Amino acid sequence: MALTHPLDPLSPGEISNAAGIVRSKFPGESPIFRVITLKEPPKQEMICFLEKEHSGQPLDGRPTRIARVQVVTRSESKNKLFELLVDLDHAAVTKLEHLVGKHSYIDSGYMKSVEKACLADARIQGEIRKLELPPGASVVVEAWAYAPDGMNDMSERVTMCWFYMRLFDNPDANYYAYPLDLCAEVSEQLQVTKIYQLPSSVDERIHDHPQPYDRRKIHSTEASEYHPSLRPSPRQTTKPYQVVQPEGPSFNVQGNVLTWEKWRMHVGFNYREGLTLHDIRYDGRSLFYRLSLAEMFVPYGDPRTPYPRKAAFDLGNDGAGINANNLRLGCDCLGLIKYFDGWHNTNSGEPLKLPNVICCHEQDDGILWKHTNFRTQNAVVTRSRVLVLQTIITVSNYEYIFAFYFGQDASIHYEVRATGILSTCPINIGDRVPYGTTVAPGVLAPYHQHLFCLRIDPALDGHSNSLQVEESIPMPINDPTSHNPFGVGYTTTSQIIAHEQGLDLDASKNRTFKIINEHKTNPITDTPVGFKLLPCYSQMLLAHPQSHHAKRSEFASHAIWVTRYQDDELFPSGRHTMQSAGGEGIASAIKNRKRSSVGSSVRNEDIVVWHTFGSTHNPRIEDWPVMPVDKMVVGLKPVNFFSGNPALDVAVSTQERNKSFLVEDAAVKASGCCKL
Amino acid sequence: MALTHPLDPLSPGEISNAAGIVRSKFPGESPIFRVITLKEPPKQEMICFLEKEHSGQPLDGRPTRIARVQVVTRSESKNKLFELLVDLDHAAVTKLEHLVGKHSYIDSGYMKSVEKACLADARIQGEIRKLELPPGASVVVEAWAYAPDGMNDMSERVTMCWFYMRLFDNPDANYYAYPLDLCAEVSEQLQVTKIYQLPSSVDERIHDHPQPYDRRKIHSTEASEYHPSLRPSPRQTTKPYQVVQPEGPSFNVQGNVLTWEKWRMHVGFNYREGLTLHDIRYDGRSLFYRLSLAEMFVPYGDPRTPYPRKAAFDLGNDGAGINANNLRLGCDCLGLIKYFDGWHNTNSGEPLKLPNVICCHEQDDGILWKHTNFRTQNAVVTRSRVLVLQTIITVSNYEYIFAFYFGQDASIHYEVRATGILSTCPINIGDRVPYGTTVAPGVLAPYHQHLFCLRIDPALDGHSNSLQVEESIPMPINDPTSHNPFGVGYTTTSQIIAHEQGLDLDASKNRTFKIINEHKTNPITDTPVGFKLLPCYSQMLLAHPQSHHAKRSEFASHAIWVTRYQDDELFPSGRHTMQSAGGEGIASAIKNRKRSSVGSSVRNEDIVVWHTFGSTHNPRIEDWPVMPVDKMVVGLKPVNFFSGNPALDVAVSTQERNKSFLVEDAAVKASGCCKL
Repeated sequence: MALTHPLDPLSPGEISNAAGIVRSKFPGESPIFRVITLKEPPKQEMICFLEKEHSGQPLDGRPTRIARVQVVTRSESKNKLFELLVDLDHAAVTKLEHLVGKHSYIDSGYMKSVEKACLADARIQGEIRKLELPPGASVVVEAWAYAPDGMNDMSERVTMCWFYMRLFDNPDANYYAYPLDLCAEVSEQLQVTKIYQLPSSVDERIHDHPQPYDRRKIHSTEASEYHPSLRPSPRQTTKPYQVVQPEGPSFNVQGNVLTWEKWRMHVGFNYREGLTLHDIRYDGRSLFYRLSLAEMFVPYGDPRTPYPRKAAFDLGNDGAGINANNLRLGCDCLGLIKYFDGWHNTNSGEPLKLPNVICCHEQDDGILWKHTNFRTQNAVVTRSRVLVLQTIITVSNYEYIFAFYFGQDASIHYEVRATGILSTCPINIGDRVPYGTTVAPGVLAPYHQHLFCLRIDPALDGHSNSLQVEESIPMPINDPTSHNPFGVGYTTTSQIIAHEQGLDLDASKNRTFKIINEHKTNPITDTPVGFKLLPCYSQMLLAHPQSHHAKRSEFASHAIWVTRYQDDELFPSGRHTMQSAGGEGIASAIKNRKRSSVGSSVRNEDIVVWHTFGSTHNPRIEDWPVMPVDKMVVGLKPVNFFSGNPALDVAVSTQERNKSFLVEDAAVKASGCCKL
Repeated sequence: MALTHPLDPLSPGEISNAAGIVRSKFPGESPIFRVITLKEPPKQEMICFLEKEHSGQPLDGRPTRIARVQVVTRSESKNKLFELLVDLDHAAVTKLEHLVGKHSYIDSGYMKSVEKACLADARIQGEIRKLELPPGASVVVEAWAYAPDGMNDMSERVTMCWFYMRLFDNPDANYYAYPLDLCAEVSEQLQVTKIYQLPSSVDERIHDHPQPYDRRKIHSTEASEYHPSLRPSPRQTTKPYQVVQPEGPSFNVQGNVLTWEKWRMHVGFNYREGLTLHDIRYDGRSLFYRLSLAEMFVPYGDPRTPYPRKAAFDLGNDGAGINANNLRLGCDCLGLIKYFDGWHNTNSGEPLKLPNVICCHEQDDGILWKHTNFRTQNAVVTRSRVLVLQTIITVSNYEYIFAFYFGQDASIHYEVRATGILSTCPINIGDRVPYGTTVAPGVLAPYHQHLFCLRIDPALDGHSNSLQVEESIPMPINDPTSHNPFGVGYTTTSQIIAHEQGLDLDASKNRTFKIINEHKTNPITDTPVGFKLLPCYSQMLLAHPQSHHAKRSEFASHAIWVTRYQDDELFPSGRHTMQSAGGEGIASAIKNRKRSSVGSSVRNEDIVVWHTFGSTHNPRIEDWPVMPVDKMVVGLKPVNFFSGNPALDVAVSTQERNKSFLVEDAAVKASGCCKL
């Protein structure tokens, strides 16, 4: 059996071991295990290991396997959150920290208890009765983590409960189509501490005069349901489309090491980030030490109390790993699919399999390069094959599809597709508000933002890298020091960033962010080897800089951040986002290092580049009742890194291999030319 | 036989008829036919016709079929260019215009004569001898249209000849890898009027001391050749990938009418724009009257004389139609392919078939929408099928792949992929210049821009449309007139554009351009129905506003233009771009209408929206010797146009239909699970 690689996620056995070691630290208690995950080795150790690994040296002195464990203990109905580091090689706890004032990520079991407690509360029942819901309808409670607004003590968890109506008795009915004018706060002790009516009109204050449910809000299932069992027959016009790879996939998987074309990488997975990628190489050359979605923030733009409490950290609060979908063959991917499972843990510390959380497959991506010699009319064309690593998460009403695309030309693209169901709240029939769209009678889909942060830990031909900002600017005209007689010349300016900071995009200047290795000069172009970021142009956070939202999501104020690599600095809103007060994000880290003696130079250093992007999502009715994907794409492309087109050796396309079919005439039938 | 539709391109018979009618106007002369194309009917006539067509009324009073013909006559070695309108229904010339001072688009036959004349010139031969080229090498002349720089009389054509070396005797050798230090101007009369050495160092002036070819510039075929016959064996790692549609395509073609899913459109094609789309409808509702790539401009940023003469209008000068590739099954598209042919004309006025210039096929585009009910764990997922209409053009060294993608969610995406070979010029070994990249020894790839203009002629539920500019802005904080106690609120501002103008993008404000129909209000959202543009964020023209480049490419100064529809106003740099002086573009048209009494209001009018986008292409060595595609994408999506997600009725994905294959383990072999 192959030895565990230092970057492999914890195995089920390691999870059990870690739990056992931790239990012995809490005798007589039954700690609730929230996290048992790999603490990745310090980078310095990994650099040594990877150097040996890739040069074929003996792999002695392997980094210690360390588990990072979070447990909650409960006494006198108070929770205590602890983080432990467990040395699995020596069966020892090496660190135990009581995380005072911090909360673990969302516990779905607890959220279910909150819902139950809420519905069981007599006052809530009384409020529901006042709504005079139609016969057959039932109430669904959606429990949300509380985004601090300064109105409550945050030392314990407070949960916001939003109410919806399930119009008829079907568990897949879309209750988001029937938001109710009711809201509750529930305490850590499962007590309903406050009940509100909601602001549901242009009057911006919460009202306190419960109204019976307005029956005019009841609308057709045709408009509100997405589940096929509740819909008319689907369109029949879409004929089957299948992908066939008669010789198998072009990729190879050995454990967590994935190789494909000239790529090699290590596939990781954890409860929080979901899919992570490590030690990414192309044609034997190191490109990136680690790529991951590091955080995302979804603040709502409805200013009316209590809606400022709607602001989700879908990674820090919810977890992209534990909410990853079990992907299904022929549904979530097409063609020849390899699935990766993830491992998490149960509350009691047993290993918990998260099946099929990552799918790996190839796609045809149209033309890769083409040239026709107009003198000979000889055309040479290659098709682009891409390798896709995809994971999909569900966070309550919403889903995100995250995918890395690797190209034969050494490009990487990271794509986010937002889909799922809009979060809704009630609105009076006939009213309109300026911070939301009425998508169905009585249904407001408030404006909101999705702000993602992609963490790029480069290792371009080594770990000493820099961030270069280049702009394309016109040469001066009529300037004696510059030869530009016709006013057509332009050049580029270059600035290499010296210190940690946040930076902004500017398409009007073709501002380009390049990660370069200043120690390696491309012998032909005579410039440093590099990769450029193809950013996703997006609006940054709209909430006021002094708002709780802004303080908690520091990464959302600039599109680009560059920091000096620090072990364990993985999350740009800090390690703990649940009910966080803010001030623990990337801007604070930079400020703290600036103030202290820690060097914050990022030139010719081990750097990390963070890209914030996303969408200002002002819903349209076409996003209802389930939204067609909204795509956002970020790219990384070599710039003077190689000695030419890395895809130059891709074989030309031939009909012999591609086996396309000609549609001869207008009305092609299955019995015609297309039969196999 | 079906009657010709007014939007059908001219048939071969119509081309012959038109030529015959025109010939009779030039007795005793042999006019050279440059253009015989459909003059599309006036929109007012088409509106009537389409109304009848779509409501099933008798199609009486069809618009007259008119051919637009351009001929060149030659006397006393002077060319005269004429444009004629030919009424094909009445076999009559209705207009004859002598286009004084204008030049027709590039004549490939003439360009060949230029090359030949250039090589036959004794002085040129002398210059070539001075280069002392290596044995076996030959000289290739690349003739380019002249971009005016004020240095020559433009009343006749002047052609710039650039010289390259074919290192060895193979017609597919990449001579762009050996740019020579020689350049010539050739006159309309095929006389070499000027010979230059080129600026090939940091010294920015043309030098006049011919040097023998520097043998250090000769480099390996491995680095410079792209043709498979000149390269080592390609990578063998890419396994076949095929698309199978056992029940045939989901689209239907009747003549030029294409229907697919809920889409219906008329496919057009002409020598200049190539693919055009007309009368685009979704689910029976009118969306766009016409979509087309209207122009593109490729100015080079090298300021040194004579490089400012390198600036190509690839549509106006070259023609996207006549340079469209003959697409090949299994190479340029994958799956079940329908090809459309185009028709052009020979110099003598005979119909000339341009085979397979458009391919039409479907693609799987990943997930269209998904939701998992976290309470039931029931996942509903649909896959996105898109219809692709693709055309590829070759303009000398370069290629462009243009594709419209139609989605089941009523979205349209327009994608440009730039590929082919960089235009190169010589550089001394060891030198560097700030406006280009050295991609091989002695080979400079100068910086340049690709600026495209997509013309969007909307007809959203009718022809009276407006352009709305929306921005997302924070609500004021601590403002007594605004309720935003937590500083999280944001709303949108809206401005409806009143007059013709150019506008800019601003991602930082989430500035969104919506085409709306103010007369049609969405009954649910209570807002006008509309489509929004998803722009491609790009740097605009870098050349100085007073430069010839800027005057000739007015559209390249703003990302968005809105104009009042005018029959025949199809080209944002004017009808004639060959050696154009400028001042005939979209900005001038707007200015002229403003000055005159012609109304330039664009609110609730028949409007046209033009989107300028592209890339500032500062080459990287990875673009050499043939560049992997650089993608640019523009989108159009409904915003409160429909009553919900237009793709809600797409059938859910099933393995039964999609027939994916599971990769069970690491080393999958063809003999394993993947065998069909």
